[in-house]
Amino acid sequence: MTRSVTIGELARALDARSWGDAALPVIGAAEPAATSPVGPDGGVIALAMAPKYAEALKPGSMAILAEGMDPEAYGLKAAIFAPRPRLLMAGLTRAFDAGPDIAPGIHPTAVVDASAVIGADTAIGPFVVIGPGVRIGAGARIGPHVSVGRNARIGDQALIHAGARIAHGVHAGDRLIVQSGAVIGGDGFSFVTPEESGIEEIRRTLGAREDIRQQHWTRIHSLGGVELGHDVEIGANATIDRGTIRATRVGDGTKIDNLVMLGHNVVVGRDCLLCSQVGVAGSSRIGDRVVLAGQVGVNDNIEIGDDVIAGGATKIFTRVPSGRVILGNPAVKMETQMEIQKAMRRLPRFAQQLAKLQETVTRLLEKA
Amino acid sequence: MTRSVTIGELARALDARSWGDAALPVIGAAEPAATSPVGPDGGVIALAMAPKYAEALKPGSMAILAEGMDPEAYGLKAAIFAPRPRLLMAGLTRAFDAGPDIAPGIHPTAVVDASAVIGADTAIGPFVVIGPGVRIGAGARIGPHVSVGRNARIGDQALIHAGARIAHGVHAGDRLIVQSGAVIGGDGFSFVTPEESGIEEIRRTLGAREDIRQQHWTRIHSLGGVELGHDVEIGANATIDRGTIRATRVGDGTKIDNLVMLGHNVVVGRDCLLCSQVGVAGSSRIGDRVVLAGQVGVNDNIEIGDDVIAGGATKIFTRVPSGRVILGNPAVKMETQMEIQKAMRRLPRFAQQLAKLQETVTRLLEKA
Amino acid sequence: MTRSVTIGELARALDARSWGDAALPVIGAAEPAATSPVGPDGGVIALAMAPKYAEALKPGSMAILAEGMDPEAYGLKAAIFAPRPRLLMAGLTRAFDAGPDIAPGIHPTAVVDASAVIGADTAIGPFVVIGPGVRIGAGARIGPHVSVGRNARIGDQALIHAGARIAHGVHAGDRLIVQSGAVIGGDGFSFVTPEESGIEEIRRTLGAREDIRQQHWTRIHSLGGVELGHDVEIGANATIDRGTIRATRVGDGTKIDNLVMLGHNVVVGRDCLLCSQVGVAGSSRIGDRVVLAGQVGVNDNIEIGDDVIAGGATKIFTRVPSGRVILGNPAVKMETQMEIQKAMRRLPRFAQQLAKLQETVTRLLEKA
Repeated sequence: MTRSVTIGELARALDARSWGDAALPVIGAAEPAATSPVGPDGGVIALAMAPKYAEALKPGSMAILAEGMDPEAYGLKAAIFAPRPRLLMAGLTRAFDAGPDIAPGIHPTAVVDASAVIGADTAIGPFVVIGPGVRIGAGARIGPHVSVGRNARIGDQALIHAGARIAHGVHAGDRLIVQSGAVIGGDGFSFVTPEESGIEEIRRTLGAREDIRQQHWTRIHSLGGVELGHDVEIGANATIDRGTIRATRVGDGTKIDNLVMLGHNVVVGRDCLLCSQVGVAGSSRIGDRVVLAGQVGVNDNIEIGDDVIAGGATKIFTRVPSGRVILGNPAVKMETQMEIQKAMRRLPRFAQQLAKLQETVTRLLEKA
Repeated sequence: MTRSVTIGELARALDARSWGDAALPVIGAAEPAATSPVGPDGGVIALAMAPKYAEALKPGSMAILAEGMDPEAYGLKAAIFAPRPRLLMAGLTRAFDAGPDIAPGIHPTAVVDASAVIGADTAIGPFVVIGPGVRIGAGARIGPHVSVGRNARIGDQALIHAGARIAHGVHAGDRLIVQSGAVIGGDGFSFVTPEESGIEEIRRTLGAREDIRQQHWTRIHSLGGVELGHDVEIGANATIDRGTIRATRVGDGTKIDNLVMLGHNVVVGRDCLLCSQVGVAGSSRIGDRVVLAGQVGVNDNIEIGDDVIAGGATKIFTRVPSGRVILGNPAVKMETQMEIQKAMRRLPRFAQQLAKLQETVTRLLEKA
Repeated sequence: MTRSVTIGELARALDARSWGDAALPVIGAAEPAATSPVGPDGGVIALAMAPKYAEALKPGSMAILAEGMDPEAYGLKAAIFAPRPRLLMAGLTRAFDAGPDIAPGIHPTAVVDASAVIGADTAIGPFVVIGPGVRIGAGARIGPHVSVGRNARIGDQALIHAGARIAHGVHAGDRLIVQSGAVIGGDGFSFVTPEESGIEEIRRTLGAREDIRQQHWTRIHSLGGVELGHDVEIGANATIDRGTIRATRVGDGTKIDNLVMLGHNVVVGRDCLLCSQVGVAGSSRIGDRVVLAGQVGVNDNIEIGDDVIAGGATKIFTRVPSGRVILGNPAVKMETQMEIQKAMRRLPRFAQQLAKLQETVTRLLEKA
């Protein structure tokens, strides 16, 4: 599948200025070193927003340059000038993304319950299973082997990749993207023992164990669903458990990366980024515009304010006020963590200095 | 699908005392603020085990209260008194869990090998694949797109959610629950190099590398299976690898959360809780009633005693005696970790104090 | 399925020396305690490479022993002597691995696009979906519910387990192994805000936040594919995202364990081992023969040299030179980490010593 636009059309779509022959057809994007002179059917365009990248461009090719760079110096046939490079990258890549290519219509092998309501212009792949009472909006693209459980509701323009699992009662807004293997609406991990359990005991005693005994775990079932806002994206093999009584919730515009885990009853606000392998334990609440870098962990029943940013592998055990930038295990302010790390590296030296000082003082004492 | 019981029946089922009109039908559970006056078809019941929750109840509704609370003060029509709230929660949620709703019988699209033996009263969804020699007990519910490999054996009353993978030779007891996307019986991650590998070298030299050379990894195949006891639950997208020669084993009553990894040859005891994103490397052994909180890591070939509790993100590199409560990376006793963390936060101040003290002592020495 | 070879054939296949009756048939491997006297149809062979293991062998059974051990002392009927035990283990387990048992040919339920080219001697299971333009080499075994997207290319002798996802445009070499639920070629997690985002701000200000404002995330699409070399293995539920413009790449001979995450544009070299739950963020580059133990995290845009070994749960935020052995969060040389950990355990005592020393010095000052 080849898409092609002229470089002039592309510049207009990207709200950017073009230079050179605006009629040249662009058929895709490439790295600077992978460019070649534009041929009769057009050519690829490279991102080369700094001279060090632009040097690899082939003469006669096309590129996106930063303002102030000279396309003639690189022998280009045409160029686009990028005011904000990464934003332009979004537009450029969207223009050439052919996506997973699911054939329009409902594949004959799909099992769609008669009571399900599917919007117009959908593409549903082979072996998809859609349960009773499901509603899916217009323009949905659903890859092979996806299952959507009873009474789930999904808005317009959804893109659900192969093998994703949307369990019964999950509700999602418009423009939902679910990568392959994600599981939305698994049962919460919530158990209780008839007597006080070891975990309850150490929470009460802050670590001491008095009396260890047999304990069998009885399951607390998950009756709540999962509610996802508009423009939510869920990564490959991520898991979002359903709530116990109320729903687990993810706000509008929040993006969730691969292998992330959201426990039962978790609430995540709007426009957050939860990077890969983040885990948020049951009933924690995360504000708006929060960024959790890869492998961050959030204990259960924790509150994280708006605009918090947590660096990679930060482990959060206590409430985090809004706007804070945190790092480390356990999480502290990033600048404090930096000081702690510096001091830790000097620790073995401290130990030596302290020992020497003790000796000196002992000698001084003897003299005194 | 609506289930309904009277509040009197529900109280009896929960082994608890009811108050008010015992004939009112209960059709589900809700949060206190989401209640409404009981109508002719009944209503939802809220959990409101403390006054701060009960204040949100709507007059004319139904609730579960703690002993000593006054249902009339909240204008309730009926109430249940909970002796141990979380245990009651288990009973309540079980009563109203409609589950994944798989139609009874074997879906015509399922591919079940002629030599497989499936018990009575099973519900097997669309596109399920069941291999030769498989035995599945009575009352199993198996969601769409599940695969069960050759000679696997699963006990009675299993619930296997959409897209779970049970590989060949896996054995499981009764009341097995497998959430979507879990993979039971993948091959172990076990490789060997013809010559000593870098890993073997640093284990021998404790970190030093003398001689770095080419190394190609040859696979050690996994001939062992996976054995799961009765009442085991496996979370969404968790993975349990098969053993090399003997089986990887999980004991009765153990619950495993989403995205947990158990390596080849691992043995986990009875009634453990392994929370989300826990990883246990190959050949480690975990005792009974062990609780590993989210993101805990266990090195390979480690022994963890009975009744150990490890806090969130604890990394375990060495043997842990029974009954110990541990925290941190590397794991130490929780109380020691608390002291270490306190001291770490004071570290930058220590550094200053130490420097100042050195100055003072230097001056004293000059005087002496 | 029973395979059987004579112990003499097995010894020759393993390039090892046999002892005793070389004609005895071996039908599988077992642990020493699970052996029994060889019967008329043969028996299992146990690995017992040290006397403590060999003591559990049953008289009349067969075993693999270390050089210098005496088979008559254990009453064995036959034995094989292993020069390098773990290497022999690879040969032994390969000899008896029956694998996932996918029937030869293409299952009638599989949906294979007419334009796909599939090599000879393949076994493709039920409900497999293979898209347009796909090329798969000879001898492939593909389990049930696998999907292979448009224009993907896979070499000879691939083994792809049930429910694995190979997205459009993924290229892989020969002898590829993909465990169940792995997702190769999901979209990268790459977003941009129209204005500078909070993350960009703290990278610039090193932690300070001046001005918090609304931010919506715009998606950067992933046009690059994923390129896997020869002899690559991908673990269960691992995820490898596609690159943005160029491909995400994994070199020949590299093995990737369960639940590992490789972000967009990541490059991993040859003959690496990436253990379970490792996460490598976008655009990082990893050299050849690198070993990352379980739960290691690598920040984005990091370079890791050849022959680096990182211990369990190491978190890597900065460049690592070739050959280094690292441990801890943040990663430091393993020997430095050992010293830091020792000092940390002594920290509370340091604090006491420091306080006492301060007192002493104060008293000395008063006297002076």
